[in-house]
Amino acid sequence: MARKATIIGGGVIGGGWAARFLLSGWDVAVFDPDPEAPRKIGEVLANARAALPALADVPMPAEGCLTFASSIPEALEGAEYVQESVSERLELKHRVYAQIQAVAPNVPLGSSTSGFKPSTLQQDAVNPSTIFVAHPFNPVYLLPLAELVPSAKNDPDIIEKAKEILREIGMFPLHVRKEIDAHIADRFLEAVWREALWLVKDGIATTEEIDDAIRMGFGLRWGQMGLFETYRIAGGEAGMKHFMAQFGPCLSWPWTRLMDVPEFNDDLVDLIAGQSDAQSGAYSIRELERIRDQNLIGFLRVLKERNWGAGKVLLDHDARRRDVMPDPSPDSAAPMTFAHLQVLPGWIDYNGHMTESRYLFASSETCDAFLRHIGAGMDYVAGGFSYYTAESHILHAGEARLGDRLTGSVQVLGADEKRLHLFIRIRRGDDLVASVEQMLLHVDMKAGKACAAMPCVLERLMPIAEAHAALPRPDTAGRHVGQRSR
Amino acid sequence: MARKATIIGGGVIGGGWAARFLLSGWDVAVFDPDPEAPRKIGEVLANARAALPALADVPMPAEGCLTFASSIPEALEGAEYVQESVSERLELKHRVYAQIQAVAPNVPLGSSTSGFKPSTLQQDAVNPSTIFVAHPFNPVYLLPLAELVPSAKNDPDIIEKAKEILREIGMFPLHVRKEIDAHIADRFLEAVWREALWLVKDGIATTEEIDDAIRMGFGLRWGQMGLFETYRIAGGEAGMKHFMAQFGPCLSWPWTRLMDVPEFNDDLVDLIAGQSDAQSGAYSIRELERIRDQNLIGFLRVLKERNWGAGKVLLDHDARRRDVMPDPSPDSAAPMTFAHLQVLPGWIDYNGHMTESRYLFASSETCDAFLRHIGAGMDYVAGGFSYYTAESHILHAGEARLGDRLTGSVQVLGADEKRLHLFIRIRRGDDLVASVEQMLLHVDMKAGKACAAMPCVLERLMPIAEAHAALPRPDTAGRHVGQRSR
Repeated sequence: MARKATIIGGGVIGGGWAARFLLSGWDVAVFDPDPEAPRKIGEVLANARAALPALADVPMPAEGCLTFASSIPEALEGAEYVQESVSERLELKHRVYAQIQAVAPNVPLGSSTSGFKPSTLQQDAVNPSTIFVAHPFNPVYLLPLAELVPSAKNDPDIIEKAKEILREIGMFPLHVRKEIDAHIADRFLEAVWREALWLVKDGIATTEEIDDAIRMGFGLRWGQMGLFETYRIAGGEAGMKHFMAQFGPCLSWPWTRLMDVPEFNDDLVDLIAGQSDAQSGAYSIRELERIRDQNLIGFLRVLKERNWGAGKVLLDHDARRRDVMPDPSPDSAAPMTFAHLQVLPGWIDYNGHMTESRYLFASSETCDAFLRHIGAGMDYVAGGFSYYTAESHILHAGEARLGDRLTGSVQVLGADEKRLHLFIRIRRGDDLVASVEQMLLHVDMKAGKACAAMPCVLERLMPIAEAHAALPRPDTAGRHVGQRSR
Repeated sequence: MARKATIIGGGVIGGGWAARFLLSGWDVAVFDPDPEAPRKIGEVLANARAALPALADVPMPAEGCLTFASSIPEALEGAEYVQESVSERLELKHRVYAQIQAVAPNVPLGSSTSGFKPSTLQQDAVNPSTIFVAHPFNPVYLLPLAELVPSAKNDPDIIEKAKEILREIGMFPLHVRKEIDAHIADRFLEAVWREALWLVKDGIATTEEIDDAIRMGFGLRWGQMGLFETYRIAGGEAGMKHFMAQFGPCLSWPWTRLMDVPEFNDDLVDLIAGQSDAQSGAYSIRELERIRDQNLIGFLRVLKERNWGAGKVLLDHDARRRDVMPDPSPDSAAPMTFAHLQVLPGWIDYNGHMTESRYLFASSETCDAFLRHIGAGMDYVAGGFSYYTAESHILHAGEARLGDRLTGSVQVLGADEKRLHLFIRIRRGDDLVASVEQMLLHVDMKAGKACAAMPCVLERLMPIAEAHAALPRPDTAGRHVGQRSR
């Protein structure tokens, strides 16, 4: 049975949490008295469905079930985790916690607050030990960061359990060791926001110029290394001390307005809102959200390819979820299924179905899994030998669409010491979507020419080839492009 | 003859400028009395050569010639632009400007200063009208931002000329309309740096935790939208005014330490340098630079694919440089070259060369360009018709490696109203790396079946097919997998 999370407050942040849990296979009950909440959450969920799966390279679990509860006790039935995302009003949060803990005093209770300390949230609670800060960042369904802030009153087991749950839904819980107002990230956001208001008010720069000053320069650096690692590099081989010696004296220069607060009046609001309209008004908020999400997916996939920063979180998450596929029996007389893939948004072409080269990608993944199975995986390649594809024939039999789950199976058509002739079928359920016939050559990579495979590989390969020799030969094997169907 | 830039000061920043100019085809003369300057610049240039070309989709110009001058007058001979990147000491900068303007009083003279205002730099100059701030961001060869700050004394023509030169070397000159200390971006960096020092000093977070708080969350947002556009989204359909109303009151909350300056003593330096070693010490600075550059290339290419932010700068730069390729004449009797690609880091497999499915990707890009050429591009697809690939045969003839520049050419083997039989060659220079034979069917997408192409397409396709009928048929056309060579 699916695990269940309760989301109190169904705005953009609550909706983002709901989407993350649902797409991770959890059931979710939302409580929000706003009659618009189902529509709002539906919109966030639609964005999330189009975005989060694009980060995964393992099949997503079946989506959980979303319900809207008419009361807090109803929402809490069977819940293993509660996330509160109501407005930043302390008395409201305290009232909500009292209602939660009247029926579920022991369930972990995270708050999305950007500012309040956990000890403030815990005041007068029935059970302060379960209440902590779990502060996410919009869009919650894409950005991994959740600042997890406990106070001295928290039960350490509850905090560990909460971290485990956050990791299970693909997040990066950053354990903040000492509680302060606004935790960590929002202290930076606040400092920058304050400075930015001055720059606009003083006519130094428009909102668009400020955004360009960030996203054309240091914003790109910060997305992958943050502040200190970036400056470590700036110090060069002389290191961090050298950098600090250079930068230290600037602290006394008049480089920020900082603690001064611009008068927050209608003129300032109109000035900024007007500039923001001029800058971004050509797009609706929905369009901007989609643009943002596609950009973030791109950044996150770049980092994932490099196993770096937020990308490492994604790789670890995949590893945790990967189906440990049963090793197909080597003497099986049937084609052997290896690869399990899901069609991701980035694989879709302008026709709306899977782009051509991804059929071959699915086939390559299948072939790679087969090669690992016969002992010709990465370790073998590291020893200087590999199978190279000499040629391939792809026959399209159907169209794969977004979200389809595909499998790849291998039938060995022939094999000798140097050559490996495979027939790979890419299927959705029982439907064939493409078949790929391939000839691979075993290569001595250093010498750059074909050679016999190592005995350890041939010992695993040959019995499969013999067993498969008894299988019916596929109708379309040996076909050339443009040949009429037989 | 190549244009020439003079770089005064050959550290990381000066070296980055030199690399940008050289890789954009300018000659560069460097003046720096440090005997280590050639080594240092050589290292930056090596990084830049491995990075900047990966952002381009048009061939790079031939690299310019780098010389080291023994005096400022020698460095200035024939220079069209001067960039000063010496230490942040005002009297040094003034001395350098006097030496420059003694021999070249009219050449545009940009300063890399992070803090000084142009009017301060211009004090006592022979010709203040040519001296301005052109503040870049490390790595200068990858990040497009250059804050261009004039004072009232500048000649507007000089400023326009400087902006044009910065665009020519691929940068984004952000014209800062009023001079202030630290321009725009460094005011934010200063505010964040100050706050970060407090967080470390007070034991709230380590350098690594602070970096994670940035790069797992808002850093990713800022790399593509900056501050205001991100917050515009956060306001939802209610917009920027709604967002500001929510956030406004926080300005009076104690969310930053801001103007307080932590005592900058050895203890603080040791604390931070020690934490930085623990965080990043497993990598040398050179390794961190390469990791950073690969990450930035990935981010910038993501944005380029989406024509967004810094990626738009790259696309515009390509467009400016694109060899206006002669539109292949439709009655050309030769195969027509369409696609120009460079092999990117993410396309490399564990064997160290281009992964299998990317050969088909290169072929698809070529085929798509051909379809656009015959009027069957995106607009045609939007009308409900498209060409679908029915089958493909790929024959590998060589290996493409990281950074290789590939072209794709199309030879039409046959065409009728419904069928299109293509032979695509993927080459590196004159070397064939793969050929792809494909059969495409013209499809009514709504009906889901083959149908005749529209006359407007056939009118463009058929003359090409007739011209190509006279070409020799490729040896390997009609080949099936495993067939012995003819």
